[in-house]
Amino acid sequence: MILPALLTSAGFNIVICVGFFSLYSILRKQPVNLKVYFGQRLAQLKPEQKNYYFGQRLVPSAGWLVKAWEASDDDIYRCGGIDGLVFIKMIVFSIRIFSVASVLCIFIVLPVNLFGQAIQERDAEAQMDMFTIRNVQAGSKGLWAHFFALYVVSISAYILLYVEFKSVARLRLEQVIRFPTKPSHFTVLVRGIPWCPGEAYSETVSKHFGSYYESSYLAHQMVYRSGTIQRLMMDAEKMYNVLKETTIPEGESEGPSAGVVVEEAVEGATNAIQAITPEPETHHKNPHKKDGKEECAAAFVFFRTRYAAMVASKTIQSYDPMLWVIDFAPEPHDVYWANLCVPYRLLWIRKTLVFMGTVVFSVWFLLPTTLVQGLVNLDQLEDHFPFFRNLSETYANIVSGYLPSLVLTCFVLIVPPIMLMFATLEGTVSRSSRKKSACCKCIIFFFWNIFFYNLFTGTWWDRMGKLTVTGLKDMATLVGSLIPGQAPFFMTYIMTTGWASLAYELMQPFVLIINWIYQFVLLRKEGYGDLYTFPYHTEVPRALLFGLLGFTYCILSPLILPFLLVYYFFAYFVYRNQLLNVYITRYNTNGSYWPIAHNAAIFSLITMQAVASIIFGMKDFVTASTLAFVLIIFTALFNLYCRHKFLPLFNNKAVQDLIEMDRHDEHSGKIEEILPRLLSSYYQFGGLHGNHPTDLLAAEYKTFNSADAGRKT
Amino acid sequence: MILPALLTSAGFNIVICVGFFSLYSILRKQPVNLKVYFGQRLAQLKPEQKNYYFGQRLVPSAGWLVKAWEASDDDIYRCGGIDGLVFIKMIVFSIRIFSVASVLCIFIVLPVNLFGQAIQERDAEAQMDMFTIRNVQAGSKGLWAHFFALYVVSISAYILLYVEFKSVARLRLEQVIRFPTKPSHFTVLVRGIPWCPGEAYSETVSKHFGSYYESSYLAHQMVYRSGTIQRLMMDAEKMYNVLKETTIPEGESEGPSAGVVVEEAVEGATNAIQAITPEPETHHKNPHKKDGKEECAAAFVFFRTRYAAMVASKTIQSYDPMLWVIDFAPEPHDVYWANLCVPYRLLWIRKTLVFMGTVVFSVWFLLPTTLVQGLVNLDQLEDHFPFFRNLSETYANIVSGYLPSLVLTCFVLIVPPIMLMFATLEGTVSRSSRKKSACCKCIIFFFWNIFFYNLFTGTWWDRMGKLTVTGLKDMATLVGSLIPGQAPFFMTYIMTTGWASLAYELMQPFVLIINWIYQFVLLRKEGYGDLYTFPYHTEVPRALLFGLLGFTYCILSPLILPFLLVYYFFAYFVYRNQLLNVYITRYNTNGSYWPIAHNAAIFSLITMQAVASIIFGMKDFVTASTLAFVLIIFTALFNLYCRHKFLPLFNNKAVQDLIEMDRHDEHSGKIEEILPRLLSSYYQFGGLHGNHPTDLLAAEYKTFNSADAGRKT
Repeated sequence: MILPALLTSAGFNIVICVGFFSLYSILRKQPVNLKVYFGQRLAQLKPEQKNYYFGQRLVPSAGWLVKAWEASDDDIYRCGGIDGLVFIKMIVFSIRIFSVASVLCIFIVLPVNLFGQAIQERDAEAQMDMFTIRNVQAGSKGLWAHFFALYVVSISAYILLYVEFKSVARLRLEQVIRFPTKPSHFTVLVRGIPWCPGEAYSETVSKHFGSYYESSYLAHQMVYRSGTIQRLMMDAEKMYNVLKETTIPEGESEGPSAGVVVEEAVEGATNAIQAITPEPETHHKNPHKKDGKEECAAAFVFFRTRYAAMVASKTIQSYDPMLWVIDFAPEPHDVYWANLCVPYRLLWIRKTLVFMGTVVFSVWFLLPTTLVQGLVNLDQLEDHFPFFRNLSETYANIVSGYLPSLVLTCFVLIVPPIMLMFATLEGTVSRSSRKKSACCKCIIFFFWNIFFYNLFTGTWWDRMGKLTVTGLKDMATLVGSLIPGQAPFFMTYIMTTGWASLAYELMQPFVLIINWIYQFVLLRKEGYGDLYTFPYHTEVPRALLFGLLGFTYCILSPLILPFLLVYYFFAYFVYRNQLLNVYITRYNTNGSYWPIAHNAAIFSLITMQAVASIIFGMKDFVTASTLAFVLIIFTALFNLYCRHKFLPLFNNKAVQDLIEMDRHDEHSGKIEEILPRLLSSYYQFGGLHGNHPTDLLAAEYKTFNSADAGRKT
Repeated sequence: MILPALLTSAGFNIVICVGFFSLYSILRKQPVNLKVYFGQRLAQLKPEQKNYYFGQRLVPSAGWLVKAWEASDDDIYRCGGIDGLVFIKMIVFSIRIFSVASVLCIFIVLPVNLFGQAIQERDAEAQMDMFTIRNVQAGSKGLWAHFFALYVVSISAYILLYVEFKSVARLRLEQVIRFPTKPSHFTVLVRGIPWCPGEAYSETVSKHFGSYYESSYLAHQMVYRSGTIQRLMMDAEKMYNVLKETTIPEGESEGPSAGVVVEEAVEGATNAIQAITPEPETHHKNPHKKDGKEECAAAFVFFRTRYAAMVASKTIQSYDPMLWVIDFAPEPHDVYWANLCVPYRLLWIRKTLVFMGTVVFSVWFLLPTTLVQGLVNLDQLEDHFPFFRNLSETYANIVSGYLPSLVLTCFVLIVPPIMLMFATLEGTVSRSSRKKSACCKCIIFFFWNIFFYNLFTGTWWDRMGKLTVTGLKDMATLVGSLIPGQAPFFMTYIMTTGWASLAYELMQPFVLIINWIYQFVLLRKEGYGDLYTFPYHTEVPRALLFGLLGFTYCILSPLILPFLLVYYFFAYFVYRNQLLNVYITRYNTNGSYWPIAHNAAIFSLITMQAVASIIFGMKDFVTASTLAFVLIIFTALFNLYCRHKFLPLFNNKAVQDLIEMDRHDEHSGKIEEILPRLLSSYYQFGGLHGNHPTDLLAAEYKTFNSADAGRKT
């Protein structure tokens, strides 16, 4: 990779991005595209569509940037929920830390690199190395600049991470108080109900809770095996996946939205099927019937107080911890019904198999990554395949600067949907935790397959034949000496994948084109545009991967920082705009993405410090090498402290708050409103059947309650 | 190490062991030694002392073996508690699995090794290698025998581990039902009580629990900073440690008992000091006084039901998880008062520092271990230090066969007390968890410093100069090829450390001699003999270390198995005898040692399978190598399953049981007996002060209760 190639690539990308952004500002003004770009506002019945004059409509404008900038945290919270806010916090954290790093590294570290004398040859390859730490001579005093930058960046990161973790934990707790009437506060999900011969699961549940939670147990609702419907759903999903994967190479942000489309499409299919299938009727009429065949060993149990529900979910019921497994219930919209019927005993087998599947998939994925690396190192390819030599110089520059990242991007597009599939197979009971699990898998995959593997293949390709690895120490030296060499590749990667993906995200070309086909070809007035939830499982890993790149390279090759800052600034505007206008929030994880981001940041910090320690060691700067190693230990301690202090808040609710809310409701009589509504909030078979089981429960509650009132008087 | 040296060593040890065992059978019949050998029976007021005739008294007999054999599990349980039973279960598990391994390996694997033709030289060094897998030629069909043994041993281990884990978990649950009136069932330990200005901690506690646990909160008892007493205790402990460490090289089982003596001695000291110190009186008169200075931010809180206590200990109270930290309370005898005052916020720092201390200590410890390895390889030493050449052949055999293990043993003796000190510094709140923590540290230390380090130094010493390591694969090959070579060293180790330690444990020479000095020199009639608790932190790691050796070597060098089986058979008799007669049980962990043993066994299995996989690979037996690797994955899955199924039972109590016990007590009126007793069960300052704070509480309870009764009528 040489400087002209990088500049060509940067030029291309800037043109593309500016073009797309302008195009977007025009397209969003067309009434035709309302459904595509303002899905979220339409859903909230407050469409933001001014009557532009025809002339105005065709002129690009920066209005959307201003609006995204002006929106307050509360606006984001209202549209994107706590998860949306947390995602914006991730971006803001990155902007802050890399601004600090940029100031330090570009004004202090970069000059030291440039005026170093280590690289003597002046060939094209070495041009880029001039900007990296490679150019600093061993034992040079200039390395103190790198060391200083390392410490300042690390300490700033600690402070920012601590503050953000604290604020997210606080937000999460406030969440409970902010929405006091959420059904999930009063409900637990019970799995692994023991099988008693001659007794329906339903009876077992009411016996157990009626006996041990006498005072607080309200009612329960069984989960039913949906039989044909479930099978059809599975088929539809499979078919959809097949269709989707064949249409993938169309572009960047198709991945994310496709991931969500799966859900939507399948839901649509189910509803359609339900409407024509009389099957579920049979057990709707008599949900408590003796025959346990159609019930699953899972149920939602409702309590009279939030505290009782919390207590039930935190305790072990019987001598076998695989029976009566109780968790907080997900929100009604969040329940992933298909997985509720999976027997709890099989879950760990599923998890193990999925884990193995993920490993196999990751190994298989090395193939395209190696191919990409081959394209980057065009010189080597020319040696092996002579026909490459016929390419002219310009083409070669384009190929070596732009194509490899694009190929990688296309391959990476299929990862999130596959990870989402894996997460489904794992047996998660809620949509939000499914997405979170897919997100974690994607992060590990990206970190490993994009970052580390590219480092190592680059290393291996460059050095193959030049020297043989003869020990662990040699290995470390090799890694340390060649990491800076991969900087140009990652710069290109940030431009192509990062910038372009933002443009794609903003444009939503896939939905846009379908909408046009609907309106202009099929001549349907209403147009096309579905309501998507935000694709956290593709966007969070991407943002964190760029964070890893930034941390690793900030002191080695500071030239990467401007590219990165541009990405994060754009991301800030684009994602705020999308959260405000496009995506809806049907479920959220209550900020559980932050601990993931925190862990990724800690991992990035440790990588940065380890690489710095190795490189300082190689440059005969032992003091700094040791002190950088000390920094690793300090990072680990900091992480430990944060986990101790904040993580428990992500798995628990505070007793004080719950009890006080319960008391408040009790005193104000509000509880009488909440409880009947609670009983009709979870329904498995859509809203199509008037008399779904919870209606019966609600009726039951009224009887029970009047009897109770009678007792009181 | 050559065959004659091994035999010399075995001869020595057999003579020593038989001698000691006979001596013990004589000594235990002397009325003079009653306090030394029957401490536990004396404590239970049922001394087992027949009137032997003078002649009988001097004849060795096997009566104690018979009695140890005849004792039932219930007897062990009554004397040693659940932990004693679990420890015997570990020994029985080892006997079972190594019996299976012996039959397979000695009758199938050993002949294959012996008739292999791989070793051509017939020098002394090679004599021992004839019995190991080294003698099997690459690609030989005989390796199927090793492979078969590997699978059978692994599968037997899975079955036995599963059965034992299940039975221990069941035992633990039954424990709750067996002792329904234990104060710890109703009590929680609260730490991190928030500091409210102008309010004593005691008020804060009663406000909090009175408000949120209105119906079930009974009373609480603050923990007081013991000031001078605490400081004096610390000093006494330090002094005692210094004294103890100087007297260490006396022998083997001094370590364990010394570890316990610390506690006893210090307790004695404290009592003595308390008797003369008027200081604690000040706050005994008014425990609830406003001034919060002398209170710690910790308290015991008593509840009316077991269920309420359990619920409180499982929930998070406030938005800051470092405040109001609630755990199950330890039993009154089990509380380690000195650590209760440690602020909860500092605990993680202490844990981290202790962790670092442990690492530093382990590194420092490599010094004596290297020295020991130097002695084993006498030939090399002779090259470096010419004066060794003057030793005659016999002496050389003794030195190379016996001395190294003895030196190692002596050095290892100081490890458990130091680990116990580390565990104390960690801030554990109960004596049992302190011992458990020390036990875990010792296991890791032993596994690493004795097993792995001896392997590697042996390897390194042997091969230094012969070949240079040139890569990871080479490294694996080197390890794989040299592990069998260390078998003779570990055989000696089993004989010296294992057998001799049992004889020492049985004889208790240290206490015996002090007793004699008391009776015959100081002429005190009552003699000397203190009540010790069983030193799990030295005996559990030793038993597990031998298990690791057994698993690793059973198919490589089956000759180790007879030595090991002898050890475990002796151990079975000796430990049963000691549990029945010598040690008392003041506190126990409710079987928490089993998960530790389970993990160690899993680790040993994986080591065995990994080594086998490497060695099969080296012998060009690729099928078996792959299948052995598959076995590693299977072991990991098995472990995962067991952890899922049984481990939750070790951190929780079952709600069903607790609620049913509560109801039973409520109905039978027994609760009125239990609660007042409960309030007077935890007392911080010994039994010396008549009016300790809980007496006041008990009085308070009576008032409260009569008021309550008044309300009811």
